[in-house]
Amino acid sequence: MKTLKFAVLPGDGIGPEVMEVALDVLKNAGEKFGFALDYEHADIGGIAIDNHGVAFPDSTKTVCENSEAILFGSVGGPKWESLPPKEQPERAALLPIRKAFSLYANVRPGLLYPQLTDASPLKKERIPNGINIVCIRELTGGIYFGQPKSTTTLENGEEQAIDTMVYKTSEIERIAQVAIDTAKARGGSVCSVDKANVLETSVLWRKVVTEYFAKHAPEIKLSHMYVDNAAMQLARDPNQFDVLFTENMFGDILSDEMGVICGSLGMLASASLGAEQNSLGFPFGLYEPSGGTAPDIAGQGIANPCAQILSAALMLRYSFGENEAAAAIEAAVEKAVTGGIRTGDIAFGLESVGTKEMGAAVLKNL
Amino acid sequence: MKTLKFAVLPGDGIGPEVMEVALDVLKNAGEKFGFALDYEHADIGGIAIDNHGVAFPDSTKTVCENSEAILFGSVGGPKWESLPPKEQPERAALLPIRKAFSLYANVRPGLLYPQLTDASPLKKERIPNGINIVCIRELTGGIYFGQPKSTTTLENGEEQAIDTMVYKTSEIERIAQVAIDTAKARGGSVCSVDKANVLETSVLWRKVVTEYFAKHAPEIKLSHMYVDNAAMQLARDPNQFDVLFTENMFGDILSDEMGVICGSLGMLASASLGAEQNSLGFPFGLYEPSGGTAPDIAGQGIANPCAQILSAALMLRYSFGENEAAAAIEAAVEKAVTGGIRTGDIAFGLESVGTKEMGAAVLKNL
Ligand SMILES: CC(C)[C@H](C(=O)O)[C@@H](O)C(=O)O
Ligand SMILES: CC(C)[C@H](C(=O)O)[C@@H](O)C(=O)O
Repeated sequence: MKTLKFAVLPGDGIGPEVMEVALDVLKNAGEKFGFALDYEHADIGGIAIDNHGVAFPDSTKTVCENSEAILFGSVGGPKWESLPPKEQPERAALLPIRKAFSLYANVRPGLLYPQLTDASPLKKERIPNGINIVCIRELTGGIYFGQPKSTTTLENGEEQAIDTMVYKTSEIERIAQVAIDTAKARGGSVCSVDKANVLETSVLWRKVVTEYFAKHAPEIKLSHMYVDNAAMQLARDPNQFDVLFTENMFGDILSDEMGVICGSLGMLASASLGAEQNSLGFPFGLYEPSGGTAPDIAGQGIANPCAQILSAALMLRYSFGENEAAAAIEAAVEKAVTGGIRTGDIAFGLESVGTKEMGAAVLKNL
Repeated sequence: MKTLKFAVLPGDGIGPEVMEVALDVLKNAGEKFGFALDYEHADIGGIAIDNHGVAFPDSTKTVCENSEAILFGSVGGPKWESLPPKEQPERAALLPIRKAFSLYANVRPGLLYPQLTDASPLKKERIPNGINIVCIRELTGGIYFGQPKSTTTLENGEEQAIDTMVYKTSEIERIAQVAIDTAKARGGSVCSVDKANVLETSVLWRKVVTEYFAKHAPEIKLSHMYVDNAAMQLARDPNQFDVLFTENMFGDILSDEMGVICGSLGMLASASLGAEQNSLGFPFGLYEPSGGTAPDIAGQGIANPCAQILSAALMLRYSFGENEAAAAIEAAVEKAVTGGIRTGDIAFGLESVGTKEMGAAVLKNL
């Protein structure tokens, strides 16, 4: 029997609770679809700061290196909020781990079931059939890691800070390929978002994307939009997009805007795909819910585990090629939720269930 | 009698139509509040490209230099869309004019009358009393003008593009003062938006803003938020903000998101204040509607002139100190619109009127 070897990094807040349920679902899927699990837990984020003094310890890195993928919970919380912004768990865990494993492609489905439109801040008539889009965000380039990135004191005594946004052809081409693959799998189109009227990096982005699509996927409809307009269009009519494709910083902002418009962060999964293949010939990747650690409800057993379960499904699909099992889990979540089993964040008048009950409902539908 | 000397740059599309109505309202306000108008028209944007070969001709610059303020329409349209992004009228007019007059402070009221909540994409129960916030955007710094900004060919033949985001203490302090003034005038609070967990410029931004507020306006409540979270919170609950305060690029994105959430761009005005004072001792400034040239309805006499009229009111307030007249115009627009006189963009079942009729209704209520 095929064995799936992955690292489990539950992190802080609701992370451990929802992770437990997601692992149950994976086990069950393994029994049905014929694979075994071989996973190892490691600390990440706040708990790693507490236990090891750093948010992404070497020991955790080693566990990840010995795995084919990473299933990630979420990190951060009030306990570490007084740390300087760059030392806070989310930042101090995520940026180094992205860098360490060249996780250049962030794939975020923006999915809202038609039965759940109450959850969206948008008027129902704007999204009568829910929402079904995907955001592809470049995740290791741009202004996040570009050098120089520094603060200096000027001659007149003032301080001056500098960040550098940088992109080169090959970085843009490899993420363009992910946008193409995603659009092909959905039978959809791609809208590439940039600020080519102001940024040199965006001029290059637009040029490389245009040429790459023309050469490698002329059949896919490609359009371009400025980022300020995209922020408007997302809030006006999200379904005008199919694959929303953009660079790191714009993707940080737009994918979160997309997330909130989809109603509940408790339902949204994400994949961050690496440049390297794992030993199975699939991309190494990190899979995490889009929501946070929800410290207000942590430890109460009432968090929505669906985002974590759906992230596990993405792991099966992208890093293990278990497409059938992935689709079955996604269908089971949809059936459970649209059938009326709801945690508090998506209850809307229905009785709400706890984390474990939600997990059980997914298992029942698997 | 006091004479208000300003440049009139109607631009393209609906620009000239709504400008005519705004000038009528200004004339009428002058009769009531005791000032005369002395204004000169000049070309800007697409029409300037057609007539002079450039979007911001020297002749137009001279007209502006001889004025105390600029009343701006809007620029761009399908005719010039095939130009490269950086040569398109909006970009080619706005960036040089901002630079030429050091228009460092963009003030954008995000106002939705409670009677007009139908216009917002957000559910009514999220904004039962409409929306009333202000976005203050730094407008001449950051990644828009920072150097180096260039594209080079690497040794391996790839191209690499670079943009530089840069801020220094004094740039941050002068815009912090605008946020303070705005909050004071509203009796409100300030939320400063940055990405201090990733950007050096944001670390400096947060530090300078915190120190400046502590020193100059300790009585004003100041909070900080990451830009990705701000993009979520705007779409979830816009009224949690009072003064939303941020740097150039983030402000470009968030102010447009705010605009669409406020329902109709046809109702939203903006002021871009300069570093220099005019001969009256007020800031030189440029005043423009937040919407675009609306080429689909240009020339039909049905565009909503309210944003242009409200921009003229901001000009009276900021560049001419005519606070009473400004408030009277704002009240007249509100009365006309909430009284049921509506252009097509905000009609919602009511009979819709044309640009001139809308202007007449405002005049009637002045
Ligand atoms: C924590 C932060 C550095 C990170 C980012 O900006 O990428 C987060 O916002 C995200 O989107 O995963
Ligand atoms: C046209 C463009 C350069 C401009 C900007 O990005 O500032 C516009 O989007 C705006 O917000 O006024």
